[in-house]
Amino acid sequence: MTFPRLLLLFSLFSLTFSHENFDTHLLPRPLIVEHPETLLKEQSETHLKEENRLECSSWRFSVEANNLSPWKTIPEECVEYVRNYITGRGYSTDLQRVSREAADYAKSVELAGDGKDVWIFDIDETLLSNLPYYADHGYGLEVFDPVEFDKWVDKAMALPIEPSLKLYEEVQGRGFKVFLLTGRSESRREVTVENLINAGFRDWDQLVLRAPDEHGKLAIIFKSEKRSEMVKEGYRILGNSGDQWSDLLGTTMSTRSFKLPNPMYYIP
Amino acid sequence: MTFPRLLLLFSLFSLTFSHENFDTHLLPRPLIVEHPETLLKEQSETHLKEENRLECSSWRFSVEANNLSPWKTIPEECVEYVRNYITGRGYSTDLQRVSREAADYAKSVELAGDGKDVWIFDIDETLLSNLPYYADHGYGLEVFDPVEFDKWVDKAMALPIEPSLKLYEEVQGRGFKVFLLTGRSESRREVTVENLINAGFRDWDQLVLRAPDEHGKLAIIFKSEKRSEMVKEGYRILGNSGDQWSDLLGTTMSTRSFKLPNPMYYIP
Repeated sequence: MTFPRLLLLFSLFSLTFSHENFDTHLLPRPLIVEHPETLLKEQSETHLKEENRLECSSWRFSVEANNLSPWKTIPEECVEYVRNYITGRGYSTDLQRVSREAADYAKSVELAGDGKDVWIFDIDETLLSNLPYYADHGYGLEVFDPVEFDKWVDKAMALPIEPSLKLYEEVQGRGFKVFLLTGRSESRREVTVENLINAGFRDWDQLVLRAPDEHGKLAIIFKSEKRSEMVKEGYRILGNSGDQWSDLLGTTMSTRSFKLPNPMYYIP
Repeated sequence: MTFPRLLLLFSLFSLTFSHENFDTHLLPRPLIVEHPETLLKEQSETHLKEENRLECSSWRFSVEANNLSPWKTIPEECVEYVRNYITGRGYSTDLQRVSREAADYAKSVELAGDGKDVWIFDIDETLLSNLPYYADHGYGLEVFDPVEFDKWVDKAMALPIEPSLKLYEEVQGRGFKVFLLTGRSESRREVTVENLINAGFRDWDQLVLRAPDEHGKLAIIFKSEKRSEMVKEGYRILGNSGDQWSDLLGTTMSTRSFKLPNPMYYIP
């Protein structure tokens, strides 16, 4: 129950009782009779909401701590919770925090200065936000539809995640090589470049997408292999930002990994 | 603001106004004058509380997603948040969930039946709860004091984490070997065994503590080495439960890892 509603309710309550003692006709009697029921109903709604919040934030903990893997869709009872988190201030607060923490770490690292120090960024839900797409698809309630999603990708209209853009520019400014490592297909290179530039991202050093023969691989395998190739080429992977654990775990892990929040979908 | 307090506040409010119109002497006037200020103050307190909740739950996300490592103490402004989480229903809900998720996974695994399938458990804040100690030390606000903590350990009074005991018995019943892998020192073996038994844990297959020459090692290195030895002995590590990322990450990681919540302290 919101504060203004309570205020209204009790103002009515006070009016009702104050007049009740002195003039029973100024306000209609049913207001008094209905009142306890309304109160009980709202109390029980508040209780249910609190229970739901507890369960859904526990579900989100298990997602972000990678306990739940694999999962296909968000629980139906958490649709409202996820929507509120994403469209409210929760998501943006978390995105800002992880960007700050990564930047703090980036500043603390002494680079060798030989151009071999690398920061890896995933793209979707890390640099670019596909929220307009997911808002139209139940914020993760619908099973992921790759055909529909590719139509959205082809529009090159994904938005920048501003705190990630800030981090991107920060690590670039400090002399890290910036490698973008995405599960998107090589066939989407052009539109991906267009979208990244539209969103303000500039001058990355590599953009690694999935080659045709890599489509069958789990993301965690594909990304581990690509990191391993980078290391074989003499690069040191010092930072890695991704919204999926499959961006971060596996072999040849980065010195530090930064998990961006994403309660909408899971990629193995 | 709690509901009963609001009820009381507005009951006073209604009384005040109802009498105000008819008899200005029944209740002292200051009640009326003070009221709007009280309201404003409480509204702004509610707002501050909401901001604090947002910031501290974002901090907790960054802890549980391992973005913040390393950290020494909880932020001072989150002491109340952490205490409420730990002593309220948040912590127990999260503990129950991770236990259920791990049990679901354990049930889905087909064991080879050769006695080489292993589930690893950490001890502190995984099987045993040191909450009575941390309640006396600001729930993580104080810098960790190993001397004081050892005094507590020597009492062998840590409590079982009930959902973990349930998981422990579940995986044992399914035929997993249960290995306990703890950062506690070998010198605490006796008291650790006593405490585990007091808390209801039975029939583990190995209890691995730190040998004297292993005290200088980071937990993540020590535990990785121990897992590696287990694998060399032919064991397959299928599950691993711990409240620290240093229980779970590193080399020779388990097939599945389960991160229990712990916003009170961090072990590198």
